[in-house]
Amino acid sequence: MPDTISFARGAPSADILPHEQVREAAQRALTDDWETALSYGVGIGHPGLCKWIAERHGDVDPAQVMVTNGSLEAGAMLFASLVKPGTRVAVEQPTYDRTLLLLQQLGAELVPIPLEADGLDVAALEAALADGPIEFAHVIPNAHNPAGCTLSIEKRRRLVELASEHDFFIFEDDPYRELPFEGEPLATMLSMDSGDKVIHASSFSKTVSPGVRVGYLVGPTEEIAKLSKHANEQYISPNMLAESIVLELCRSGVLDENIAFVKGELKARCDALVEALRESIPEAVFVVPQGGYFLWLDLAQGTDSKALLAEAKGEGVSFVAGPDFMMSGGENSLRLSFAPVPAADAAEGVARIATALEKLRAGTPA
Amino acid sequence: MPDTISFARGAPSADILPHEQVREAAQRALTDDWETALSYGVGIGHPGLCKWIAERHGDVDPAQVMVTNGSLEAGAMLFASLVKPGTRVAVEQPTYDRTLLLLQQLGAELVPIPLEADGLDVAALEAALADGPIEFAHVIPNAHNPAGCTLSIEKRRRLVELASEHDFFIFEDDPYRELPFEGEPLATMLSMDSGDKVIHASSFSKTVSPGVRVGYLVGPTEEIAKLSKHANEQYISPNMLAESIVLELCRSGVLDENIAFVKGELKARCDALVEALRESIPEAVFVVPQGGYFLWLDLAQGTDSKALLAEAKGEGVSFVAGPDFMMSGGENSLRLSFAPVPAADAAEGVARIATALEKLRAGTPA
Repeated sequence: MPDTISFARGAPSADILPHEQVREAAQRALTDDWETALSYGVGIGHPGLCKWIAERHGDVDPAQVMVTNGSLEAGAMLFASLVKPGTRVAVEQPTYDRTLLLLQQLGAELVPIPLEADGLDVAALEAALADGPIEFAHVIPNAHNPAGCTLSIEKRRRLVELASEHDFFIFEDDPYRELPFEGEPLATMLSMDSGDKVIHASSFSKTVSPGVRVGYLVGPTEEIAKLSKHANEQYISPNMLAESIVLELCRSGVLDENIAFVKGELKARCDALVEALRESIPEAVFVVPQGGYFLWLDLAQGTDSKALLAEAKGEGVSFVAGPDFMMSGGENSLRLSFAPVPAADAAEGVARIATALEKLRAGTPA
Repeated sequence: MPDTISFARGAPSADILPHEQVREAAQRALTDDWETALSYGVGIGHPGLCKWIAERHGDVDPAQVMVTNGSLEAGAMLFASLVKPGTRVAVEQPTYDRTLLLLQQLGAELVPIPLEADGLDVAALEAALADGPIEFAHVIPNAHNPAGCTLSIEKRRRLVELASEHDFFIFEDDPYRELPFEGEPLATMLSMDSGDKVIHASSFSKTVSPGVRVGYLVGPTEEIAKLSKHANEQYISPNMLAESIVLELCRSGVLDENIAFVKGELKARCDALVEALRESIPEAVFVVPQGGYFLWLDLAQGTDSKALLAEAKGEGVSFVAGPDFMMSGGENSLRLSFAPVPAADAAEGVARIATALEKLRAGTPA
């Protein structure tokens, strides 16, 4: 058993990174596509990968796609183009801590919208819209980070309607879409949008590997043209070598094989975590994830998750405390990432959290 | 002979990209270093590559190094951290058009400093400093883009003294340092700096390939820590896969072999261009490049290089007109990039420019 079991980071453990497949794809890419892979590209990135992504999203126009150095920077560029100090932006609560920070740094007026078991509380968003216009809503539809929930198909439809009615963008931030544990991914809001109101972001970090840093945006042609011009001014082109290798994985079908493998591993890890929580921390309230990396749990009111984390580290286990994902609140919540924890370690990891919780409540902090 | 001979782009032609070497390095990197290559890194990039770069720069502290997705974005991040609207920044005239645009977008008050045959006119910079403080001076010391000149060792020393005396940064933007046609590269201002006033940027775009998008900064520890925190907030980590491959090229000695090869090719291309210009456009005044990619030439006063470019395109040749690199002026100047033009094509390319010039002056535009 490892000294420290970390449920903290939203990253897979090395044993499920497809290093042999990437090595083989690199050989093929640098044999067949080396000129594109090694030359300067343009702001949209590798045209072949843009085309593949466009087809993957149900034959959208490739001019609606730009590939970026990971999807976080794609979001950062989008935010910088849309947000001025005071711009109203709806964010889920809890939400991804990194995008929350970027929006705060730009001086956005953040409008918090609670999450329910089936995703964003649409009634709360409608109430916020009644208070005044918003520029965009940041929505993580599938296997939410950190909340673990998935947005229902009905709510997706309603959100797209609201965006058209009230003239705001939906930033559909969707890196976990390809990782549902059962069945096919739900339809994207992008695919429901006929009003040029959805900008969809995704990434190959969870389906290939984080180190390739390949993400992308799909959205209205005009917005994509503006953002790719900015990208070109900022870095000429994103990483053509990594994109060429990713394209080879996509074209050859290895991507889909790897997605099937990764989903199986993640499901096993999630199942083991859920079982361990029910066994060792029965007070924990959580939505059982339907995919992705994360489980969000609430402990009894009055539990201080930051103090629990300090105690947990002494027991050899870590996670991220709820307040990191919140504008305020989240004190009795925590995010557990099951992606980095092999199923065999889950019970021990949760037992350590349970011990930490017991010690915290006994008033004998480490 | 190609339909169009382009002296426009600052990029090598495909025939001098080391695709076999990169393919072999990718195999080794994805065998020996795959875990780092495929995982999230941190803001500074690949720690092994930071260490290698630190040693390459005469054993600076690796904490002074951060690797970035190309050096343009490194500059963009530095500028964003130092420049507010009205911040005075000294820029060479002519200077690199992409950095000029970034500074203009940030609202910098640009202070133009002319170039001489041996680089920046230091007396002009001193006069500008007498007018008021500057935040930093953007200096391209070796094989200047677009001017082709190289900053003398005496001027480097004096600039570093001035930076300490007047408390400004030197942004030493140095992608062409490793490509002198004769002898060893001149000492960097970074190596002369004992006052934490030099921030050095460079890149593997010209020594490996542009498509790998691997650049870096070396500077004061405190500035690097601040910038790498920002980088982490913006994109988590730069491209770990490309950096792992570049590190393998560095460690194995293949980088140095490729630099020797590329320098030989560039020198042959430059020699052919210089000979052709002397033969076909004797009025052209230029500094003979000592390395790098670019030759800057002045035609007779009154020549309109933008009109010449339009005419030249009709003749099947292109370049970039001088005004693109200037805050004002440059009308009778042009930048010729010899990097993309094989030596065998230089005479024909220059002959086409000469024909265009003749037609332009004859008043019979295409």
